[in-house]
Amino acid sequence: MEANSSSRSDRKRKALLLAATEVFLDKGFDGTSMDDVAARAAVSKPTVYKYFSDKERLFAEIVLATTSQVDDLVRLVVETMDDQPGVEASLTLLARRFIAAIMQPRVLRLRRLVIANADRFPDVGRSWYEQGFERVLATLAASFKSLADRRILGPGDPLLAANHFVGLLLWIPVNKAMFTGDHHASTDDLELCAEAAVRAFLNGYGTSERVPAKSPKPYPKPASRKNRADSSGGVGLI
Amino acid sequence: MEANSSSRSDRKRKALLLAATEVFLDKGFDGTSMDDVAARAAVSKPTVYKYFSDKERLFAEIVLATTSQVDDLVRLVVETMDDQPGVEASLTLLARRFIAAIMQPRVLRLRRLVIANADRFPDVGRSWYEQGFERVLATLAASFKSLADRRILGPGDPLLAANHFVGLLLWIPVNKAMFTGDHHASTDDLELCAEAAVRAFLNGYGTSERVPAKSPKPYPKPASRKNRADSSGGVGLI
Repeated sequence: MEANSSSRSDRKRKALLLAATEVFLDKGFDGTSMDDVAARAAVSKPTVYKYFSDKERLFAEIVLATTSQVDDLVRLVVETMDDQPGVEASLTLLARRFIAAIMQPRVLRLRRLVIANADRFPDVGRSWYEQGFERVLATLAASFKSLADRRILGPGDPLLAANHFVGLLLWIPVNKAMFTGDHHASTDDLELCAEAAVRAFLNGYGTSERVPAKSPKPYPKPASRKNRADSSGGVGLI
Repeated sequence: MEANSSSRSDRKRKALLLAATEVFLDKGFDGTSMDDVAARAAVSKPTVYKYFSDKERLFAEIVLATTSQVDDLVRLVVETMDDQPGVEASLTLLARRFIAAIMQPRVLRLRRLVIANADRFPDVGRSWYEQGFERVLATLAASFKSLADRRILGPGDPLLAANHFVGLLLWIPVNKAMFTGDHHASTDDLELCAEAAVRAFLNGYGTSERVPAKSPKPYPKPASRKNRADSSGGVGLI
């Protein structure tokens, strides 16, 4: 009986967090009231206060709850890197999945919400950065270290390599989305962006001991640079 | 007499824009009132309204006024790339100056202000992106094209190369600042970040025809990768 009551309470808490997330994403921190949250969750305002003492606490909880979604991204990194036989193939698949995950409109709106309030709630932003952003990078770094140990990537600081990989991949599309409010980059543009990032990364961090691959020319050669430039000419516009 | 009156009016308009910028940076869009702006500028509220019809218009004007500061950054890019004899030296100097300019607390706060309001005022964000962000990248791309024409950089899309250079350089420190509200990255950390970005960029985009330089080993060789990793180990923490 007590267990039932506890799980009912957990369910209600989760439902409130979901409703609050929607309201904060729609209206921002300043535009959101506890009345809005109660209305969205179809409960009374005292019910909201029973679970969350004030709007600040509720905001912190909805932001930190999303860092648990980072587990999906971490799993994606590990699985992608483990499953593929060639480093270019695995990095390209990883880059495509990663950019698709980050460029989801909801993820971008949450990102903007956290940034917008980072000066006011630095602890919330810092937790999100450490438990989200940095955790994915650490997982990617562990994968890169394993590739370097097998001489598939060159030696060097794997965390730096992971940071550079993500910077090559995300700087442009994420900034464009942040500044312009445009959450609808085309899949084609994002794929071009992913391929260009992988090429640049492997040119910088690859090794001369190339991974055996099915294609006879799995890596860009100097002679193919012209084609590469032509095919990626639109990436700068993303 | 008319010219004097016009220049007085221009001066007052500029003073109002400056005061409004401070208030918006301190309080955000929602937290700012026209009363606050009048008080900061030490004028009456009707005076503010004489120059700016409403808060939305005033916000757009203060954001777009800052894109003119981009000219300083563009000039920095051009001068740095023109003045240095070796590509590694010039890129390192550029990277250091660029990261120092972007990581100024005021620039970061403005960046956050634009991002925070990009969903509400997409036209303002888009103008800022195009007239600021993209203009610097285009200037950098022109410099890279000139280096590629002289075979100092490899061939390829120079705009893509410029995007990748900036992504390698700024992804980590700017995101950390955006999320954590921490505007005080140390100069040492930023310099490490700049040097690591230049090394990664030249490894990926450099050419075997190295620029003559005074030092006998101006570019990282595979044998020096161990040292490189050691010296840049802290960059991932920025």
